[in-house]
Amino acid sequence: MSEHGTEVQDVTEVPDDARGLVPAASGCGCGGGGCHGEDADGHQHGYITAKDNYQRRLRRIEGQARGLQRMVDEEKYCIDILTQISAMTKALQSVALELLEDHMAHCVVAAAREGGAAAEEKMQEASEAIARLVRS
Amino acid sequence: MSEHGTEVQDVTEVPDDARGLVPAASGCGCGGGGCHGEDADGHQHGYITAKDNYQRRLRRIEGQARGLQRMVDEEKYCIDILTQISAMTKALQSVALELLEDHMAHCVVAAAREGGAAAEEKMQEASEAIARLVRS
Amino acid sequence: MSEHGTEVQDVTEVPDDARGLVPAASGCGCGGGGCHGEDADGHQHGYITAKDNYQRRLRRIEGQARGLQRMVDEEKYCIDILTQISAMTKALQSVALELLEDHMAHCVVAAAREGGAAAEEKMQEASEAIARLVRS
Amino acid sequence: MSEHGTEVQDVTEVPDDARGLVPAASGCGCGGGGCHGEDADGHQHGYITAKDNYQRRLRRIEGQARGLQRMVDEEKYCIDILTQISAMTKALQSVALELLEDHMAHCVVAAAREGGAAAEEKMQEASEAIARLVRS
Repeated sequence: MSEHGTEVQDVTEVPDDARGLVPAASGCGCGGGGCHGEDADGHQHGYITAKDNYQRRLRRIEGQARGLQRMVDEEKYCIDILTQISAMTKALQSVALELLEDHMAHCVVAAAREGGAAAEEKMQEASEAIARLVRS
Repeated sequence: MSEHGTEVQDVTEVPDDARGLVPAASGCGCGGGGCHGEDADGHQHGYITAKDNYQRRLRRIEGQARGLQRMVDEEKYCIDILTQISAMTKALQSVALELLEDHMAHCVVAAAREGGAAAEEKMQEASEAIARLVRS
Repeated sequence: MSEHGTEVQDVTEVPDDARGLVPAASGCGCGGGGCHGEDADGHQHGYITAKDNYQRRLRRIEGQARGLQRMVDEEKYCIDILTQISAMTKALQSVALELLEDHMAHCVVAAAREGGAAAEEKMQEASEAIARLVRS
Repeated sequence: MSEHGTEVQDVTEVPDDARGLVPAASGCGCGGGGCHGEDADGHQHGYITAKDNYQRRLRRIEGQARGLQRMVDEEKYCIDILTQISAMTKALQSVALELLEDHMAHCVVAAAREGGAAAEEKMQEASEAIARLVRS
């Protein structure tokens, strides 16, 4: 693997059509289906765009994980490895914060409108996810 | 990829011999070579063990990154994706803290003994790496 | 100040009646007044209870800040000071997470029900607050 | 307290002479006394300067804790309180990182030079303090 000049940009090229095969109706468990940003026709154009964006960032994060293995293999300087880990942690955090924002703007809003115990549960669940992020 | 039952344990099996090809003498840049825990003969048995440990954990982290892509592909529930991201962040942090501990126990101690500007630089560099970890 | 045996439990005793003077109707800026958990009569019993809880924890945190000053004054061991800072940071985080949970359960839910641009703004604002907490 | 216009700049004015009374020789527990940055004469001018700097920042943090109590008293908007908590957390982190840097530059270097079990213990202890900071 040593022919790679840089460590953190090794991104697996998942073929684009592989993702299209996933049935769009698999749902997010939110109830009401609002979570994926469907428009009035039940299409998910907005979501598909976001999904590609998440996949691209997660493939890059996967590449960073492989880059770290290569750095350890090649016995790179510890501090340089730590720098890459910090960058990777920030990239992960950034994905998490965006997912959470999407979740709140869609699922949480939808649940709040429906009200009742389900809404309370969604809020509780979101709060717990936030606490895990803040503490990790 | 949908035949995988669990999302976070997909670990690439890097063939073991791939790692053996890396020249052990590539060094860590610390000067004095103390960073990799060489014993008096210049062998790095202790380090090799730790290296395997790091590689195993980083392969698992890479698997988590792939698991996340699959979860997004399959439009899993956002909160479940966030839970996996928190777990992955903690795993990364744990690798970073152990690397830092190793670095301090070897490189930093060695540099402190040598003294001079190089020692100060090592300390400064370690402090900056710690600040990046704390803030990421 | 050296007659204090322990560093982190010095809590200012704010007289209890001082807090009762604050007009309960000062509001939280959420619009609709839902943020403070008023019951149907406009009373805020639930909120007052939570308010006492927050005040007690914040006074303790203030005491920890004073304890830290005393430790520096008395030139306590650095590692012990760092341990207290970690404890204080966790206490602060815990207050923040509870405030955020209250905010989401009241203001965010209320805004979501009203809908429109105000709801979107509330969500955006909450997401930004979460990002600041995760990154701090 | 409502005559204060701003919430986070209320800093207790500890009289300056109060701090001068603390015996400078109380030590840091590091052994060898290197921790406080004594110069060759055993004076601690460098440290005293840093001590004032830490005290000033900790008094400001104490003021932020009081500001937060006032904000809760006055039922300020939750998001504004969270913003102040994020600022206070960052201020605390910054003090911790500087203390750690000082500790490493003095105590840890001194211990490394002495070597032996005490050096190992210092390293272990510093690593644990770092882990607590990273995880808090």
